[in-house]
Parts: sequence; structure tokens; C-alpha cells
Amino acid sequence: MSNCITIIGLGAMGTALANALIEAGNVTTVWNRTQARADTLVARGARRAETVQEAIDVSDVIVLCLTDYTAAEATLADAAPLLAGKTVVNLTDGRPDEVRATAGRLGGYGALYLDGGIMATPPMIGSSHAFILYSGSADAFEGAKEQLAAFGQSHYLGEDPVLAAVNDLALLSAMYGLFGGYLHATALAGSVGVTAIQFLAFVEPWLAAMMTALPDLAERIDSGDHARDVMSNLAMQSVAITNIVAASRSQGIDPAFMDPIERLAQKRLAGGFGADEISGIIEGMRAK
Amino acid sequence: MSNCITIIGLGAMGTALANALIEAGNVTTVWNRTQARADTLVARGARRAETVQEAIDVSDVIVLCLTDYTAAEATLADAAPLLAGKTVVNLTDGRPDEVRATAGRLGGYGALYLDGGIMATPPMIGSSHAFILYSGSADAFEGAKEQLAAFGQSHYLGEDPVLAAVNDLALLSAMYGLFGGYLHATALAGSVGVTAIQFLAFVEPWLAAMMTALPDLAERIDSGDHARDVMSNLAMQSVAITNIVAASRSQGIDPAFMDPIERLAQKRLAGGFGADEISGIIEGMRAK
Ligand SMILES: NC(=O)c1ccc[n+]([C@@H]2O[C@H](COP(=O)([O-])OP(=O)(O)OC[C@H]3O[C@@H](n4cnc5c(N)ncnc54)[C@H](OP(=O)(O)O)[C@@H]3O)[C@@H](O)[C@H]2O)c1
Ligand SMILES: NC(=O)c1ccc[n+]([C@@H]2O[C@H](COP(=O)([O-])OP(=O)(O)OC[C@H]3O[C@@H](n4cnc5c(N)ncnc54)[C@H](OP(=O)(O)O)[C@@H]3O)[C@@H](O)[C@H]2O)c1
Repeated sequence: MSNCITIIGLGAMGTALANALIEAGNVTTVWNRTQARADTLVARGARRAETVQEAIDVSDVIVLCLTDYTAAEATLADAAPLLAGKTVVNLTDGRPDEVRATAGRLGGYGALYLDGGIMATPPMIGSSHAFILYSGSADAFEGAKEQLAAFGQSHYLGEDPVLAAVNDLALLSAMYGLFGGYLHATALAGSVGVTAIQFLAFVEPWLAAMMTALPDLAERIDSGDHARDVMSNLAMQSVAITNIVAASRSQGIDPAFMDPIERLAQKRLAGGFGADEISGIIEGMRAK
Repeated sequence: MSNCITIIGLGAMGTALANALIEAGNVTTVWNRTQARADTLVARGARRAETVQEAIDVSDVIVLCLTDYTAAEATLADAAPLLAGKTVVNLTDGRPDEVRATAGRLGGYGALYLDGGIMATPPMIGSSHAFILYSGSADAFEGAKEQLAAFGQSHYLGEDPVLAAVNDLALLSAMYGLFGGYLHATALAGSVGVTAIQFLAFVEPWLAAMMTALPDLAERIDSGDHARDVMSNLAMQSVAITNIVAASRSQGIDPAFMDPIERLAQKRLAGGFGADEISGIIEGMRAK
């Protein structure tokens, strides 16, 4: 039963994962709290488990993809002892403390625990654009990696189970910055009659161009030198930031998304770093 | 003197603009408060004006690129009456109220006023990646557009002088979202020992992939329909957002950049829109 695999949780993401496993030729067993969500998958060849116990019993690799760790723990509950000797791949989004607790608990039952963070939307699953971060049991990763390859590119980060979750949450925070800035920008342009579709023609090439600044920011962050060869100094940028906040207010747009950068930039300016690049504000974000 | 042009303000950006004009073969006059900043440009063929009056006198097109509108108004001051019949291209970053006031004042002296927003960093000036938004006098734009083409792609948005500034500030807000999210992400990944350079290998492809979601968000924003074909529902995303905030705190990283999205997502969830896409939070950002 080396290519037997179970997916517990058939929301938007679990369904995409199950489809990818079926397409890759795995014997795929599925379970979902709301049973009807398994129907389409069963029609495509998945095996329906009637209970969580059965879902665990029939496969060596058990993939979890639920709303949160509370749901994951509640779903396993009494069935957890059945995980002895099995590989659990938990693709539920979690915090480091939750990951540590669940890894410990399931490890206590003799399961090999692998935590994962999916860096993709459901339609991207199975494509080369999807990547999944894993950390935890190296044996679990080695044993399951061929099956997991059906989801996208796999990156194993190390034995500490929290590594995947922290990097996953970090990447999601970058995405929320992008989306938050985009929504603010689109609302502001909308205040002078520009539609979101029209605005795309400016915002897409602009953001693509600004993405090319990230390697320079990264070098400054690693070296701690934010002062060399400055092209867009913080004093100048903070005028722009203040202007964005003021213009948003006067145009009737909530400036919430610009509040943190304004506050952090002001703090850095007050520290005497007006001639530095904006990368310097990271120094004020870390607890001393 | 049809290709005579003056640049007032030789900071990082004004210097890049002046260099582009010189390279394009324009008779370029420069003035800067701190005179020494003109030296390199003069060595490359620019003409040095000793006074603002002289800088205005010798050209038909006067480009301003200063820290802010206060600096621009202070620099023109007594010389403003000399602008009668001249074209002023103000590339200083400003707010709608400032743009309106300056356009009115200089128009009162008989100047043709064109406002502009530079969507580029200084090294990008003169390349195809640079674009500049203009609005205000159509005659000014028509008369100066060949010279302005030296800076990058020109987009004329209309007669209302505030259009360029609002779209410029909107695009900058999108950039600050990107940069803020990136800095937060890099700080969080750094808390488990990932360097900024290492993290680039994940964050660059991830953000590039997430950029491809913008057209779908734009369609939802224009139609107001955030509920159709949802792939990443807000209830699920708000678990991730809450996890980012909690993980940032426990890892010693200021969660400031995630506060607004958390607050706006919670507000939208409380409104009963948990099954919608995240684009829906824009509805809570506009004044009613
Ligand atoms: N969608 C994405 O874009 C995306 C991207 C990357 C990662 N992820 C991650 O994938 C995971 C699932 O997301 P999703 O988009 O599939 O969410 P979803 O569509 O909202 O599905 C949630 C799933 O969790 C189940 N569930 C919730 N509470 C439960 C409980 N108490 N007991 C048993 N089952 C419970 C639901 O079962 P019912 O059907 O019975 O309600 C459903 O199967 C999340 O951790 C998310 O962060 C999602
Ligand atoms: N750099 C960028 O990445 C970038 C990108 C897009 C747009 N812009 C815009 O371009 C404009 C200039 O930015 P920058 O990067 O060139 O800034 P900068 O390097 O800080 O230069 C500021 C310029 O303003 C002058 N100035 C400031 N206060 C003045 C005053 N009271 N009177 C006379 N001159 C004064 C300075 O003269 P001194 O030399 O005498 O101090 C200098 O020429 C800003 O509006 C900015 O938003 C910049």
C-alpha cells in the first residue's frame, strides 16, 4: 500500500490536493465532516472513508487540511492512537505554538509528524507555480516525498517542525502587504473615477518594477547598512507617505493600510536616519 | 529655443532627470539651492543658472523636482511672475490640495501648469520601465511631450491637475504595501534564522505568483461581486491573518503591518462576509 494516501478535510484546498493525488495515480482515500463534499472526488476515483478511524486505517500517509489546528485536533481526537507508525502531513495553517503542541502530541502516539505550508491557491495545485514548505520528521518527508510531489515543488526546511509554519506565515504576510497596498491604491484611484480594471494597467507594471528593488533591500537588511548609495531616502519618502495618508483622508478613503509605514518611518526619522534607505525601518520592528 | 529646458532641484531624482535631458540632446539649464550639486551635470554639458530668475528666463519649459510643494513654492517665490507664458512641469510629490493651490497660483501668473508623478526610481529614469503620469494643461503637455519623453513613458491623464497626483499617490501606496509586507515577512523569517537573501528565493516567486491574482480581485472590485467562485474565503484567510499576528508577537516581531488587514478582515467577517473573497474588504475602506 505504498501509494495509499488519505486526505482529511475537503474544503477548497483539500479538494485540490485530493484531485492532484488522484491524477498522479495514488490510491486516495478521503474524509470530510460534511460528507457530501466528497462526492465529486469519489466519482473521480477516490475511496470514501465512513469514519476518521477508517480514513487513518487504510493508508500509511495521512494528509490533514482543515480550517485550523483546533479543527485538526478535534477531528483526530479519539482516533489519534491509530496514527502509531503512520506519517501525518499537516497542511493546516498554524502558529508555532500550535505546531509544537500537535507535533508533540502526535509524536507521543508514535506518528511521524511532518508539518507543511502550502504556498499556492487551489487552482495552482499540481502546477510548477505551487510550492509547499515542509519541516519536521525527515523520515516522514523521505517516505512521502514522491506522493507529495503531486502538489507542486516541495521544500524541506529541517527537523524543527515550526520552520515551515513560520516561513509560511512570513510569506503570507508579504502577500497581505501586497494585497492591502493594492486594495488601498485601487480605492484611492477609484476616488477620481479610475476603475479597478483601468488601474491595473498602471499598478501591474509598477509593482513588477518595484519587485526588482527587493534584492537591494535584502542586502541592506543582511548587512545592516542602510546608508550606502541611497537612491530614495527616507526623508523624501516620508513626505510621500504623509501625502498618501492626507490624500486618502481628503478623498474619503480609510488610510489604515498606510498607518504602520507612516508610524515606523516617523520613528526611524526621529532616530536620525532620514538619509537612509527605507529598508532601515526593519530595525525598528524587532524586539530589542 | 524649442529644446531649451530648465530643471530646478538636483536631488537624486532631479539629477537623474537632468542627465536624461542632456543625453537626449536638450539645452539643459540647472539650478539647485546647494550649488555644488550642479557641478557634475555642468561637467556633462548642463548650463548653470546663478539664480532662480535666470533659470526661468532662459527656457520655455521649467521642470520642478523638489522635496515637497512647500519647497517648490519657496523656491519660486518672487520669481513666479516670470513664469508668464512658460510651461511649468511640477514633478514634486504633492497632495491634491497642494496641487490645486499651486496650479491656481501659477496659472494666475499666466503659466501653463502641468503636474506630474514619477513612477520610477532615479536609476530607472530614461529606461522603458520608467513611466510618468501627467495632468493639467493639455497645451503644456503637447508642447513639452517630446522633451519629457527623455524621462520614460508619458501618460497624460486629463485637464484636472490633481489626476496625476492622486494616481501617483495610489501607486506609491501599493508599493508601500509591497515593501511593508516584505519587511514584515523578512523580519519574521529572520526570527528562525533565515537570512534576507535566503528568503528572497521564496518571497520573489511567491509574490510574483500572487500578483497574478490582481486581475481577479479587480473584476470583483468593479462588479462589487466578491462571492462568486471563491477559492480563498475570508474566514479561512482570517485564521491565517490572526496566526501571523500571534506568531509575530511570539517571535518578537512588531505585527504593525498586519494590524490593518486584521482589523478590516474582522470587520468584514462581522458583517457576515466570511464566505467571500478578500477583495470585499475594500467595501469597508470607502467613506459611506
Ligand atoms: N484556499 C486557499 O487559498 C489556501 C491556500 C493555502 C493554504 N490553505 C490552507 O488550507 C487549509 C484549508 O483551507 P480551505 O481553503 O480548504 O478552507 P475551506 O474551504 O474553508 O475548508 C475548511 C475545511 O475544514 C473543515 N473543518 C472546519 N472546521 C472543522 C471541524 N471543527 N471539524 C472537522 N472539519 C472541520 C471543513 O469541513 P466542512 O466541509 O464540514 O465544513 C472543510 O473541509 C487552511 O489551513 C488554509 O490556511 C488554503
Ligand atoms: N528618489 C526617488 O526614488 C523618487 C521617485 C519618484 C519621485 N520622486 C520625487 O522627486 C522629488 C525629489 O526627490 P529626490 O529623491 O530628488 O529628493 P532628495 O534627493 O532628497 O532631493 C531634494 C531636493 O529638494 C531640494 N530642496 C529641499 N528643500 C528645499 C527648499 N526649501 N528650497 C530649495 N530647495 C529645496 C534639495 O536641495 P538641496 O540639495 O539644497 O538640499 C534637493 O534638490 C520628490 O518630490 C520625490 O517624491 C523621487
